Amino acid sequence: MKLVLVRHGQSTWNLENRFTGWVDVPLTPQGVSEAQKAGKILHSQGFQFDAVFTSYLQRAIKTSWLVTEELQQSWLPQYKSWCLNERHYGGLQGLNKNETKQKYGEEQVLLWRRSYDVLPPPSEENEENRKIKADRRYQGVNIPPGEALKQTVERVLPYWQQAMVPLLKQGQRLLVVAHGNSLRALVKHLASMSDEDIIHFEFETGVPLVCELDEQLRLKSKEFLKG
Amino acid sequence: MKLVLVRHGQSTWNLENRFTGWVDVPLTPQGVSEAQKAGKILHSQGFQFDAVFTSYLQRAIKTSWLVTEELQQSWLPQYKSWCLNERHYGGLQGLNKNETKQKYGEEQVLLWRRSYDVLPPPSEENEENRKIKADRRYQGVNIPPGEALKQTVERVLPYWQQAMVPLLKQGQRLLVVAHGNSLRALVKHLASMSDEDIIHFEFETGVPLVCELDEQLRLKSKEFLKG
Repeated sequence: MKLVLVRHGQSTWNLENRFTGWVDVPLTPQGVSEAQKAGKILHSQGFQFDAVFTSYLQRAIKTSWLVTEELQQSWLPQYKSWCLNERHYGGLQGLNKNETKQKYGEEQVLLWRRSYDVLPPPSEENEENRKIKADRRYQGVNIPPGEALKQTVERVLPYWQQAMVPLLKQGQRLLVVAHGNSLRALVKHLASMSDEDIIHFEFETGVPLVCELDEQLRLKSKEFLKG
Repeated sequence: MKLVLVRHGQSTWNLENRFTGWVDVPLTPQGVSEAQKAGKILHSQGFQFDAVFTSYLQRAIKTSWLVTEELQQSWLPQYKSWCLNERHYGGLQGLNKNETKQKYGEEQVLLWRRSYDVLPPPSEENEENRKIKADRRYQGVNIPPGEALKQTVERVLPYWQQAMVPLLKQGQRLLVVAHGNSLRALVKHLASMSDEDIIHFEFETGVPLVCELDEQLRLKSKEFLKG
């Protein structure tokens, strides 16, 4: 069984070096190219899918559109969920990473970025977080005040069990287009990786990770598809 | 209750004046602009939707993507079905409209294009129709040998009842991005139009039709939104 994971292409805030989380920023022109390249590589290797999963954030949704367009499989059913959103970066969302280092110290920022369970400062009532709270797409969702990877794992895995596992068990081939940390959450589970190891596992933007699974849906092998 | 219907933007075969039907041709650059314009108009008027319906054909799917992107509502759930595909033009699919007139006579072609129930010649084993029959997206679908508008109505309406009516009754606001004839099928039903009248009702590419419905889901008013 195969599962392909793709991190969205470069976004405007990847470029501006800001903590993005749930802020809904678009792809850059380079991000569009990266997404198209991912689709072309998968197409050239003959990948066929039965369903596509993505988050509620446009950088992942648009990437999934561009990938399926290149694959000539834009007709595939596509499922979107906030559960595949990027880690919620709480009060850091919208801040420039260098400014944040000056404000909180380099060590603290590294701890927030590179620990499994140290929570970021809680969502402050800045404009970005106010917009997210008021956004009707999150009606009924208990928006976290801020997450470490641990909390991201805790909402990705129930969605994996409920939405993806049944389709995989039917033999469906799934494409998941999401974010650095929501994809880490999946890989950690599939490969039974330690809290320490998963933190050092990196997804480049727009580089598909092809996962081969056994019948118990555990990872047999994984390989990045680079052009 | 409001329902918005959008015909896809100009496709390469609209431009080449060929019978398209279920052949999966892309939008032209003008078609992309038309789709974006439709999204901009809807956005400027504050339209908010709860779900998007489209066909299995990329010209409609891509139009729906561009419209929802301009609306900043790309996160909406999107449902795709072959039931919203364009009328299947049978043996005419792929033929140039002028050549077809020379082959069959102008009167016969006018009859195929402008009658409610005169079937086109059945799907011949030309390359385009072979590709459609072999296409895995239609696995399990009883592909028609060719349809008049009547047969299109007969597969659009069950889908309307089963997939869209329940959502409308929950108060959901639906956007339907489809094709000249699958949209005619909907309008005929909603407005109880005669076989004769619906044939003369035209959708321009990329011009949204805003339909207001009463509680019995019958059409109270309809208006094209032009920029």
